[in-house]
Amino acid sequence: MFEDRSKKDRTELAELGEFGLIDHLTKDIIPRVPSTIKGIGDDAAVISGGDELVLVTTDQLNEGVHFDLGYTPLKHLGYKSAVVNFSDIYAMNGRPEQLVIGLSVSNRFSVEALSTFYDGLRLACDQYGVDLVGGDTTSSASGMFISITVIGRVIKEDVVYRSGAGENDLLCVSGDLGGAYMGLLLLEREKQVYKANPAMQPDLEGNDYVLERFLKPEARRDIIQRLKEAGIRPTSMIDISDGLASEVLHICRNSNVGAVIYEDKLPVDVETAALCSDFKIHPATAALNGGEDYELLFTIGLHDFEKIKSVAGVTVIGHITGEAGLAHMVTPDNKLITITAQGWNHYRNEEA
Amino acid sequence: MFEDRSKKDRTELAELGEFGLIDHLTKDIIPRVPSTIKGIGDDAAVISGGDELVLVTTDQLNEGVHFDLGYTPLKHLGYKSAVVNFSDIYAMNGRPEQLVIGLSVSNRFSVEALSTFYDGLRLACDQYGVDLVGGDTTSSASGMFISITVIGRVIKEDVVYRSGAGENDLLCVSGDLGGAYMGLLLLEREKQVYKANPAMQPDLEGNDYVLERFLKPEARRDIIQRLKEAGIRPTSMIDISDGLASEVLHICRNSNVGAVIYEDKLPVDVETAALCSDFKIHPATAALNGGEDYELLFTIGLHDFEKIKSVAGVTVIGHITGEAGLAHMVTPDNKLITITAQGWNHYRNEEA
Repeated sequence: MFEDRSKKDRTELAELGEFGLIDHLTKDIIPRVPSTIKGIGDDAAVISGGDELVLVTTDQLNEGVHFDLGYTPLKHLGYKSAVVNFSDIYAMNGRPEQLVIGLSVSNRFSVEALSTFYDGLRLACDQYGVDLVGGDTTSSASGMFISITVIGRVIKEDVVYRSGAGENDLLCVSGDLGGAYMGLLLLEREKQVYKANPAMQPDLEGNDYVLERFLKPEARRDIIQRLKEAGIRPTSMIDISDGLASEVLHICRNSNVGAVIYEDKLPVDVETAALCSDFKIHPATAALNGGEDYELLFTIGLHDFEKIKSVAGVTVIGHITGEAGLAHMVTPDNKLITITAQGWNHYRNEEA
Repeated sequence: MFEDRSKKDRTELAELGEFGLIDHLTKDIIPRVPSTIKGIGDDAAVISGGDELVLVTTDQLNEGVHFDLGYTPLKHLGYKSAVVNFSDIYAMNGRPEQLVIGLSVSNRFSVEALSTFYDGLRLACDQYGVDLVGGDTTSSASGMFISITVIGRVIKEDVVYRSGAGENDLLCVSGDLGGAYMGLLLLEREKQVYKANPAMQPDLEGNDYVLERFLKPEARRDIIQRLKEAGIRPTSMIDISDGLASEVLHICRNSNVGAVIYEDKLPVDVETAALCSDFKIHPATAALNGGEDYELLFTIGLHDFEKIKSVAGVTVIGHITGEAGLAHMVTPDNKLITITAQGWNHYRNEEA
């Protein structure tokens, strides 16, 4: 007690990164309770709940790491905090139903500021038909820390894991990619301009789409419904929070398969593409490594190819191979690039 | 965007306090989803789950507010973080089964430090038969923020709310009170001594009990089991996290009743009482306002009086009255003191 902490045997968090750290901390945890069906390692945990399965997912959003209040309106932040968790439930082919929030703020925040945050949270709950059923609001020494847990439901036969992809399955993605990342880059650029000269007005015109992608994302409930209507049950599914590259590799590892995607199939919005050109970023890089799009990445059996063509807002971007753990991208000039996970290494970012 | 935030219409968080703030933010939230049985306002939310009910509770523990790493071993902290949530589930007469953790730390922490924290978390899970099924580990700009959500189960007929107390019911408490608070005061005193002169060794001898009460509390699963064996179903129940006074008032308000407790019935351990004498604190004050004891406060029908006498570790401290919302304590010299909630106003503490 009270002794100096030794510098010996110290491994920096940055050495492992986010995924490495989680693996390290949870590697030998084995579920033992009969009601636990699936523990760590998917978009949500799965527990029994009568005729249906109960899904549980949790996400942290921390000031200065996941959001910057300099350009993030609190109402948008409340909305986004809820939606990113709903997205995890849809990625299990379920529906979100209850939300509990842990909110820690310093006394820098006023009651009105928190009410505005809650307005956004409740708007998201209303839009997606979710009940806010509990929480813990407390103080932090500094900053704002949001922790949300969402409970969802899914009919037993409908649950989709990351682990179900099979060889020759088609790899599909909803919506378009890279927009949220370009929205973030734009806001960061205008923030620097503003800091250098507060009289300058931020130049955000014509970029509504990417700003909304970043500040007020939606979860793809509509896609889940359309797939059901089309009679398609994905063989595996994950939501795109860390970037397409990272998520493709999650599916490959969990399903013990490989994947090939085609660069010219990656769906990128025109506004995103124009900004990529401004920022001299390759659109495929924004799509692969940008993150925070909250689209769905999923695989379907080859026999569903005709059906998927009729589902609006879904693009087939590649297929599953037998090369376990290996993912490649084919460029328009037919080069093969190995896909590696960038994800977010917050600990490394911090050192910058 | 980027504009200066107006100072107008600013209400400080300290003006409302923790409970006031939660009431303000959640006052008009009405559950709409069919599977939501009980939303905000008890130890845990209650949702349907087949033959049983599913319970959901969440708690935040923040460095510098809820714990001081200067005297809190990380393994103890992991253990306590889990146990305080289990306690909420037992307070619904349920059993905890799954846990998800949100953990945010700065790069001041090493991998080994987080492993030690997880060791404590997993020890608690093993002891209480709970599965760690998911989580989100990410970085904070500074400090350590722990957010834990626990899922529990209870047979439909067994669930006990805060709202079921009726006139003439007996008010009971498990274990003894005030110990955790005296443990905290002792640690804070020795920390000041150490800060003034690092060569001084902390004088903690003979105080193992109160230190353990504060650093490594247990949740009262045993009491829940004993009540079941004795054939007693409490009419209302709550766990004591903020101090007896605050919890008695919660039961009064939720059940629309009043309460009388007897000072000479309050269970206080001898070690706690000796330290109270050292610190010149009235033992009743430590019991009423100390908090963090994680004992159970519950009411039983008068007809169960004979049965409760045979349940080890339970003390009858008073009874329920018809004076809605009013709680009194009778002193040994027969004075009547009105009980007011101290709770914890973290926002006010922060200003000190």
